Amino acid sequence: MATVSGLSPLQLRFIHAARVAHLATAGANGQPHVVPICFVFDGKYFHSPIDEKPKRTSPAKLKRVTNIQANAQTALVIDRYSENWKRLAYILIRGKAKIVHRGTAHAEAVRRLRRKYPQYRKMAIHTRPMIQITPTRWAFWGKP
Amino acid sequence: MATVSGLSPLQLRFIHAARVAHLATAGANGQPHVVPICFVFDGKYFHSPIDEKPKRTSPAKLKRVTNIQANAQTALVIDRYSENWKRLAYILIRGKAKIVHRGTAHAEAVRRLRRKYPQYRKMAIHTRPMIQITPTRWAFWGKP
Repeated sequence: MATVSGLSPLQLRFIHAARVAHLATAGANGQPHVVPICFVFDGKYFHSPIDEKPKRTSPAKLKRVTNIQANAQTALVIDRYSENWKRLAYILIRGKAKIVHRGTAHAEAVRRLRRKYPQYRKMAIHTRPMIQITPTRWAFWGKP
Repeated sequence: MATVSGLSPLQLRFIHAARVAHLATAGANGQPHVVPICFVFDGKYFHSPIDEKPKRTSPAKLKRVTNIQANAQTALVIDRYSENWKRLAYILIRGKAKIVHRGTAHAEAVRRLRRKYPQYRKMAIHTRPMIQITPTRWAFWGKP
């Protein structure tokens, strides 16, 4: 596993180019959960808005949120599938997650998210909580 | 959440058409893990071969395997990403996993895997262990 500062330009590009990642959490009872998420990475944190599209559930009740509140350990995978299996690749990140509601990092994440995903420009993500993940370990498989 | 028998033809087609799913496991220490997997679904079980491509690690040492041996609870998500967010969809499956080494279900899974993924026809997956997941709960989001 590499440190964040050990990421190669190619690995960083792979992370930034990915439109979706998969976030795994686990509740206090050990039951894993996994969902596709939109995200940005600023070199220090991953951020993912809690936005249910369409909204059906209060953000605080989403399983990924209640799991993080019970157990901050998470795993995030960013991968590429191809029918040419020589091109399969993924980056697996372990990290500690928390829910942030406002502040400088939250505001900066909103800006980055709206730059990366035009879809967010019309959505009130600035008023909504955000998952913030601090990476602790990285693993690479294949050639990102 | 629906029962397996409650899957609609559209949901079943969505599952069968997906080339990749994401499997979340968690160790005894509660640390989640998530990897992209190839899989088949026979209406009762999900099967995914343990095949490391390229092989670098013994199958028994893979984190997903040691996690399942410590904690059979898993989550599997099959999703579709689109820049048109009205088309976002996923199916989230909770299930109990075990490692199977041989037998009728193993042989049938090998056949299904080789039909779905021509890449496996040249690989010795019939000699390798397989993850077998029995779904216990299903959740749908968006319109698969």
